Amino acid sequence: MTNDPRIDGERLSRRLAELARHGALPGGGVCRLALTDEDKAGRDQVVRWMRELGLTVTVDGIGNAVGIRKGQEDGPPVMVGSHIDTVRTGGPYDGNLGVMAGLEVVAALNDAKVVTRRPLAVAFFTNEEGSRFQPDMMGSLVYAGALPLERALATVGIDGTTVRENLARIGYAGDGPLGGPGKVHAYVELHVEQGPVLEEEGFTIGAVEGVQGISWTELTLTGQSNHAGTTPMRLRHDAGYVAAEIAVFARRLARELGGHQVATVGALTLFPNLVNVVANRVVMTVDLRNTDEARLQEAERRLFAFVEETAAAEGVKVARRSLARFKPVAFAPALVARVEAIAKELRLSVKRLPSGAGHDAQILAAVCPACMIFVPSVKGVSHNVEEFTKPADLAAGAEVLLRLVLELAR
Amino acid sequence: MTNDPRIDGERLSRRLAELARHGALPGGGVCRLALTDEDKAGRDQVVRWMRELGLTVTVDGIGNAVGIRKGQEDGPPVMVGSHIDTVRTGGPYDGNLGVMAGLEVVAALNDAKVVTRRPLAVAFFTNEEGSRFQPDMMGSLVYAGALPLERALATVGIDGTTVRENLARIGYAGDGPLGGPGKVHAYVELHVEQGPVLEEEGFTIGAVEGVQGISWTELTLTGQSNHAGTTPMRLRHDAGYVAAEIAVFARRLARELGGHQVATVGALTLFPNLVNVVANRVVMTVDLRNTDEARLQEAERRLFAFVEETAAAEGVKVARRSLARFKPVAFAPALVARVEAIAKELRLSVKRLPSGAGHDAQILAAVCPACMIFVPSVKGVSHNVEEFTKPADLAAGAEVLLRLVLELAR
Repeated sequence: MTNDPRIDGERLSRRLAELARHGALPGGGVCRLALTDEDKAGRDQVVRWMRELGLTVTVDGIGNAVGIRKGQEDGPPVMVGSHIDTVRTGGPYDGNLGVMAGLEVVAALNDAKVVTRRPLAVAFFTNEEGSRFQPDMMGSLVYAGALPLERALATVGIDGTTVRENLARIGYAGDGPLGGPGKVHAYVELHVEQGPVLEEEGFTIGAVEGVQGISWTELTLTGQSNHAGTTPMRLRHDAGYVAAEIAVFARRLARELGGHQVATVGALTLFPNLVNVVANRVVMTVDLRNTDEARLQEAERRLFAFVEETAAAEGVKVARRSLARFKPVAFAPALVARVEAIAKELRLSVKRLPSGAGHDAQILAAVCPACMIFVPSVKGVSHNVEEFTKPADLAAGAEVLLRLVLELAR
Repeated sequence: MTNDPRIDGERLSRRLAELARHGALPGGGVCRLALTDEDKAGRDQVVRWMRELGLTVTVDGIGNAVGIRKGQEDGPPVMVGSHIDTVRTGGPYDGNLGVMAGLEVVAALNDAKVVTRRPLAVAFFTNEEGSRFQPDMMGSLVYAGALPLERALATVGIDGTTVRENLARIGYAGDGPLGGPGKVHAYVELHVEQGPVLEEEGFTIGAVEGVQGISWTELTLTGQSNHAGTTPMRLRHDAGYVAAEIAVFARRLARELGGHQVATVGALTLFPNLVNVVANRVVMTVDLRNTDEARLQEAERRLFAFVEETAAAEGVKVARRSLARFKPVAFAPALVARVEAIAKELRLSVKRLPSGAGHDAQILAAVCPACMIFVPSVKGVSHNVEEFTKPADLAAGAEVLLRLVLELAR
């Protein structure tokens, strides 16, 4: 007979805190950029824990580490995971939670002497953040076969060194197997929300329906530099004014379109940027996101039409450049439904919502059924040393993860 | 008997071209920042010309040079003038035209052997541009008693040196008399428009009614930095969005208010200025100008009310700081009318208009009847090496100046 496996919330929090000591920043928070010495120290710690828990660890060519727990049968494992690299001023939860919760699931099963039918895998993927090497989600992209290994290895980072030489330097250029179709039975990632919705609305668990599609556009507006005193309004070609109209329109678009549409003008630079000179040039970005691809395309169409029309009326020229474009990703509906149901069985309040940020799970979703579980981020703070999630919520999320893994591995 | 004095346009253009050789920039244009060696060379040249034309030159404590042509009677002179310092990348006309046209008026009177009843004065005022030392219009301010000489002399420039030491170094710390009420009979300044209106509308002469009042406000908007993907629109405190609404409102204000109202958001800086982060801070400026003080105050009231309301609705805080505030200056209506009438007598097309830029004439207007004559700036280009006014227009402006001086000195 086996006991009913249970998450030990204190053990989970303890592991998160210990991991956060590698790359800890003086005033709080963590800096563990991908493939740095700090990342190596974090990796070594996690691999040590994996082995202590009895997992068989393999490292593949891009440095992803996968710890396998044998099942009663062979075959593709049920995988849980995330990443342990951070942004330059990160916190202890983003990514790390998914990996530490995976270890906690294994520890709980070990304690309860449960052997699942299918094997389990706990994975951490290389360079999810993309702070040092582009693109982000590099490890999972290579794992899922969406990015050639050789191209990823040749990537030059912000410090001029390559992924290849850094993997070799820290000893994480392995020869373990990559993933791909048929290699993983299902993938589940527990993550902090990185947004304010769950806390604001009083929910403990987010059943993540998918990841918003992203459209990033850079606009360069070219007007004419003129004296702010001597040039009548009707003779102006004010790039700054057109930029302002576009930013106001972006807000209107987000109000009018459905599907969790968000729109943000986060970067906007005026030239020459002087109090008494009409701006002759603006470089600005528009970030559009929607869970629905058709609506995202509608948002783009309406935005671009407004830009052309408003710029033409002012005699300002427009150059447009796509900085990024990803279609929305829908997680496996059956898995999303199980996250919701399990949370309710555990008497945890639960809300279906999309993810506004990118995650390894969206890459894995291309090769196996995948889903995500969110727990609340206090004040929605993310990519910031102030990042915080309550220990009880961390444990609640891990409990949902454990139940789902047990179902999937049964 | 005397001949009818006439402007020699070629001689005027020749002097402008010769003066432009001092501080000439390699690719064209002029850099003759106030009180530099280049400024000294330009000053020496102009003083030489003054003396060659028979003027008695005095230099006052702030370096203004005044050349007097005796009249049949003593008493306050009719003064024409402007400045010969330039911005860092200036052209040959801004300021210089008013002084060279003054010399041309004297030359024309000399050729025609005309002695006016009142004395004439040709002046150039120190540091009108304010590019090296603040405030601009420094020389005329001291001359008119609006800025204490000692304070002006103590001014430290962008290179860390004082006005006092530079005046001594270039030999222009004089002891000539300053101006003030009763010291000047009338002041007339010929200047390039520095804006596009005359050329656009096909006029040769501008009868300048006054100088617009100026209100410069700096706004610092403080919101909250948030993830552009994970933060729903309703939970945002987007300083960038509020800034855009303000810039669009400024354009609306300019459309709705009369009195040659212009409104410009020329400087606007977002923080952290990243494509996927909601801006938590914006520093921006609003430049409002109107020829009518009451309307300028209305523009300020409406702008500030809009800023408060829009920021409050978004949960964004506002800090407001005045960077500059000048009331409009009206030139002597009788003189403006004479500029208009003389232009018509000379069969030159003429338009009444305000000046959107500041000029020495607005300072002199506090101590004597003053007015300005504008000639067209091609494409409105100003403070730029591409600055250009057609020779025929330079001569036309000088001809109007000559007729007005003859009337005033009669």
